[in-house]
Amino acid sequence: MVKIIENKLIDAEPLKDAVLIEGLPGIGHVGRVAAEHIVEEFNGEKVLELYCDDFPPQIVVKNDGTIEYMKNEFYLVKEPVPMVIVLGNTQALSPKGQYVLSEKIVDIAMKYGATKTYTLGGFGIGKISDELKVYVASTSKELSEQHKELGAEFRTDGGSIIGAAGLMLKFSKLKGIEGICLMGETPGYLVDPKSAGNVLEMLSKAIGFEIDMKKLDERAKEMEKFIEKVQMQEQGMQAPQHQDDLSYIG
Amino acid sequence: MVKIIENKLIDAEPLKDAVLIEGLPGIGHVGRVAAEHIVEEFNGEKVLELYCDDFPPQIVVKNDGTIEYMKNEFYLVKEPVPMVIVLGNTQALSPKGQYVLSEKIVDIAMKYGATKTYTLGGFGIGKISDELKVYVASTSKELSEQHKELGAEFRTDGGSIIGAAGLMLKFSKLKGIEGICLMGETPGYLVDPKSAGNVLEMLSKAIGFEIDMKKLDERAKEMEKFIEKVQMQEQGMQAPQHQDDLSYIG
Amino acid sequence: MVKIIENKLIDAEPLKDAVLIEGLPGIGHVGRVAAEHIVEEFNGEKVLELYCDDFPPQIVVKNDGTIEYMKNEFYLVKEPVPMVIVLGNTQALSPKGQYVLSEKIVDIAMKYGATKTYTLGGFGIGKISDELKVYVASTSKELSEQHKELGAEFRTDGGSIIGAAGLMLKFSKLKGIEGICLMGETPGYLVDPKSAGNVLEMLSKAIGFEIDMKKLDERAKEMEKFIEKVQMQEQGMQAPQHQDDLSYIG
Amino acid sequence: MVKIIENKLIDAEPLKDAVLIEGLPGIGHVGRVAAEHIVEEFNGEKVLELYCDDFPPQIVVKNDGTIEYMKNEFYLVKEPVPMVIVLGNTQALSPKGQYVLSEKIVDIAMKYGATKTYTLGGFGIGKISDELKVYVASTSKELSEQHKELGAEFRTDGGSIIGAAGLMLKFSKLKGIEGICLMGETPGYLVDPKSAGNVLEMLSKAIGFEIDMKKLDERAKEMEKFIEKVQMQEQGMQAPQHQDDLSYIG
Repeated sequence: MVKIIENKLIDAEPLKDAVLIEGLPGIGHVGRVAAEHIVEEFNGEKVLELYCDDFPPQIVVKNDGTIEYMKNEFYLVKEPVPMVIVLGNTQALSPKGQYVLSEKIVDIAMKYGATKTYTLGGFGIGKISDELKVYVASTSKELSEQHKELGAEFRTDGGSIIGAAGLMLKFSKLKGIEGICLMGETPGYLVDPKSAGNVLEMLSKAIGFEIDMKKLDERAKEMEKFIEKVQMQEQGMQAPQHQDDLSYIG
Repeated sequence: MVKIIENKLIDAEPLKDAVLIEGLPGIGHVGRVAAEHIVEEFNGEKVLELYCDDFPPQIVVKNDGTIEYMKNEFYLVKEPVPMVIVLGNTQALSPKGQYVLSEKIVDIAMKYGATKTYTLGGFGIGKISDELKVYVASTSKELSEQHKELGAEFRTDGGSIIGAAGLMLKFSKLKGIEGICLMGETPGYLVDPKSAGNVLEMLSKAIGFEIDMKKLDERAKEMEKFIEKVQMQEQGMQAPQHQDDLSYIG
Repeated sequence: MVKIIENKLIDAEPLKDAVLIEGLPGIGHVGRVAAEHIVEEFNGEKVLELYCDDFPPQIVVKNDGTIEYMKNEFYLVKEPVPMVIVLGNTQALSPKGQYVLSEKIVDIAMKYGATKTYTLGGFGIGKISDELKVYVASTSKELSEQHKELGAEFRTDGGSIIGAAGLMLKFSKLKGIEGICLMGETPGYLVDPKSAGNVLEMLSKAIGFEIDMKKLDERAKEMEKFIEKVQMQEQGMQAPQHQDDLSYIG
Repeated sequence: MVKIIENKLIDAEPLKDAVLIEGLPGIGHVGRVAAEHIVEEFNGEKVLELYCDDFPPQIVVKNDGTIEYMKNEFYLVKEPVPMVIVLGNTQALSPKGQYVLSEKIVDIAMKYGATKTYTLGGFGIGKISDELKVYVASTSKELSEQHKELGAEFRTDGGSIIGAAGLMLKFSKLKGIEGICLMGETPGYLVDPKSAGNVLEMLSKAIGFEIDMKKLDERAKEMEKFIEKVQMQEQGMQAPQHQDDLSYIG
């Protein structure tokens, strides 16, 4: 059993015909950078946090001596287009946790008025490339064709979409709403604002809003600085010592 | 707790005295190729899909921009012999998931009228061989002897049958029906139509049907092309980044 | 949740003041060889089998074409001393499974009349040694001292007893009966009849029975032959292929 | 589901406005050494033991032939300051176990009167250093500032606090009491009494008690000797053999 705690921060009115947008951590942090930018530019209001006992068993230490929990967060944006945006500092660790959490996120977003789901992610190509494509995969052929007309391409590698970005499409469909995943090609940088910008541009065309891109790079750089610092600090660490003794007999 | 979702596609009448045939992914995809060939040749009708939160937490992207879930599928064949055929693109990931899913598959098949179980698989020999044997193991000595008379051999390696192909025999027996596993020797190719053909031939003799083998190679080649493409694409990928920070204190 | 299926084979009367003896697989198969020898010499009657979905998800193929489940088995011995003996071809895989199964085994044995628990195991020393000691650890200082007088020694390595051999002592104590673990030093052979003989000798002195050791070596050799054959066969095998596609986006 | 057994040893009266202090195993055993020293110096009374089926599936063998369970222990200290101290020889193994156990520990401590939580741990710096800092992170900015005035510093690495030391802060806050983690820099020794002393000094200033440090080194040396012996013994051990046969077909 995976336990999820909902921590409602504000009693918000549901939106009308909102778009659920997922931007959880993933390759190149493409979806996360794109979704955070939307929240910042359109003054998203944080309404709810999710905690889950399938998240990494830890807390994050902040510069001011306070702590932050591992969490997924829901933001509501009313203008220019109603959106329910899901951010966070982690995804679930186990397969079961991934399934349970993805379903829960779709459930909650639908309560906030979501009637369509966009999941945003990176598609690692493992090499530098001048032109970074945006791919689309969705729960209906018609929807995918619509995004193709906007410039997105179809993947022909036969591969998969792992984690919330994939499973939320499945649970959207099972619960009666359509789901689209936009994947931005990325060479595989730690944080890739260029790929995030490409995905964001495609999303804005698809949903129909305009967004100022000026601060996107700046925000991505801040995220990168933070993640780099954490990685350096990790290299000086030792593995935890959970137990005294492991010798065998039996 | 392993959660299984049954997605019934068609309200089908149960068959009479049907044979349950399992062809899930495994070594050389021997069982899968054989079972898919039966479905294709005898126009099997897909009646039900199973989803499970112990499957890999992902979805598959198709060439036309649409998506496919990780799933196990039930097909009914009425002629020449009533059969309930189980295909799929995955098996459960954890030991518990393997047990729960294998039991569920036998349960559902029995509701569709199955009174005997055949599981089909490959037996890797790790070397090229001119003659590829077919082995049999079953829930009764009598049954195994019957297949020996048809040309199958007994394994003397003391080894095991891992996954659904093994556990479905156990749950068949516990629920009161007999179970037989046919294993085709395979050098260990990605997809081995020759081994699949051998298993299929043995099965057709055992159950009593004739089947056209002309398209078997062709279908196996398509499956191989797909699986190869996926593997190549994987090599350009990076591992997912689930969390920001992993430094230790405690 | 770990699911355990009890398959009662015979309606047996509980014994009076029986000794529970555990001989599940472990290092050098010391406990297993010793406990199987008791069952064989004293004509133990198999009364119950346990299956568990935390066992390896597989079945074993036998030379005669039939199959064997992964299982733990209960045998009753009435003479010369009442004993409930637990054998098996596996232990549980996960920590939780180990705990749940160890508790269940003690529960069942107590229903069959067990009022004291002996767990038997090997203690790997990683080198050849002329003299192979037998160690004792138990739930009471008094009991351990009694076995010391019979020639057993105390371990001073501060190490642990992993698996059923350790946890069954804990659950015996929590349920109100004493528990003793006898550990035979073993260089770490695949199957070590010499170490098993040492443990058996200590056990017979402690409980008070005489047992013919003539066939011990022979039985250990058969077990070794079987296990070796399995290991050789494994080396020709490939890893299972559970899924088609593992590429990442998210 | 993670199962926790509470073994109450004494019917103790709850304390008034007690401080919960966590000293479970971790890097440099910093928190454990510090917390054990408090228990010893102030004659803490052991009132309760916790067992959990997400602990390592083993028991510990002691020099006198008796055994010890894997456990977390609660001690009450009345003077000079009411304290509920949590020691133990292990932490939970899985993420879920970590979450469930951390919540349970806070629950129990609150029943014993805890109104504030201190978790103690090491912060590995991976190099020798003359000056070993003590860091603080807490559930409120005000609290962290108070400890800064006492000489503690804030971490700026953006990293995490893994395990009970982190999660107990989260559950303290969710249940309405404040939580502070004190982390002593440590080069990463097996057992680091110097770092433990630094943490202890900070804690005594923060809570307001005086403690004799004379025996701290001695106790840390004993713990180190024990842990070293275990590690040496482990190197002579072989991995457990859980099953007979692992060959594949399916």
